[in-house]
Amino acid sequence: MGNNIHPIFDRLLQKSDRERQLNQSAKVLWLTGLSGSGKSTIALHLERKLYNNGYFAQVLDGDNIRSGINKNLSFSADDRIENIRRISEIAKLYLHSGVITINSFISPTRSIRQMAKEIIGPDDFIEVFINTPLEVCEARDVKGLYKKARKGEIKGFTGIDAPYEAPLQADIEIKTKDLTIEESVNLLYEHILSSIKVK
Amino acid sequence: MGNNIHPIFDRLLQKSDRERQLNQSAKVLWLTGLSGSGKSTIALHLERKLYNNGYFAQVLDGDNIRSGINKNLSFSADDRIENIRRISEIAKLYLHSGVITINSFISPTRSIRQMAKEIIGPDDFIEVFINTPLEVCEARDVKGLYKKARKGEIKGFTGIDAPYEAPLQADIEIKTKDLTIEESVNLLYEHILSSIKVK
Repeated sequence: MGNNIHPIFDRLLQKSDRERQLNQSAKVLWLTGLSGSGKSTIALHLERKLYNNGYFAQVLDGDNIRSGINKNLSFSADDRIENIRRISEIAKLYLHSGVITINSFISPTRSIRQMAKEIIGPDDFIEVFINTPLEVCEARDVKGLYKKARKGEIKGFTGIDAPYEAPLQADIEIKTKDLTIEESVNLLYEHILSSIKVK
Repeated sequence: MGNNIHPIFDRLLQKSDRERQLNQSAKVLWLTGLSGSGKSTIALHLERKLYNNGYFAQVLDGDNIRSGINKNLSFSADDRIENIRRISEIAKLYLHSGVITINSFISPTRSIRQMAKEIIGPDDFIEVFINTPLEVCEARDVKGLYKKARKGEIKGFTGIDAPYEAPLQADIEIKTKDLTIEESVNLLYEHILSSIKVK
């Protein structure tokens, strides 16, 4: 009998066992883009869509990371790197658990995203550029952060007084300006399907 | 039609959705005990047994934590607390993903385990005391750490020159001295079954 039907007590669980159980290939989707670009909205709706289609995914974003494991980090240059380093290590843990993770973080520089890719492993890292023009993000200003940044009440705000380096070779670019949320999510879903489907 | 058969695009995914998908109730098992007590061996075999029985679990231990997210921590008093804090936050993330996590860390003091319990939430925290006498752990000395601690080459080693505070009210105590690994694992498995089974 094959290993899959005859349990072996002594063999430790592998990533491949977990992927078989969940009936998927685990990947890390790394959504980068400006504040207000729609990253988290797309991430959370994609998570839902994956669930509806039988996949098992987990969003990591500011809501569950900054309020928990990274609450002892500031927004200094060093702490921003440590923030992304820890997130990448958590994404790697989930990846090895067989779970598709959807990371939603501004991650403004090429070097910081390169670090994430190296920690996670380039073969399992899918870079997603949520490309929304600054004017659009600023006009939305859902959290009122752009207003504060323009007034100088927040320093080092990406897009205002700190640079955003757009990816040079993202695996997929979502230009949200002319798309509904549903269209953006569907575009991303269709793009990743061949990567997460069991071969 | 109920929510479970009629997908709602807009509702964000809840822990209960994930638990339904995995057909289990998520819990955090917190295995505490001396170095060499058998925590990780029991954890990894329990993970396998859960998998064989259709559950989805993940071990967090030194192997995947100290080499990754916590590799920038020393063994100072402050860093030991930060070590357990981060582990607890990761366990909480997994818990909210609907996954049963099995944490295997010495976690030598009552206060450090209390912190873990508070972060994770007392209702989902199952404290497991892997109770193996110091003499047995020291005789095994799989990693040669006790020898080094006795020679003074390692300072602050739990059980030698740093205290281990046994749990006062563990949810379950596994006295490994007179049990095989399989018996220890089965004891723990039977104990948690009613907590992880879908009601």
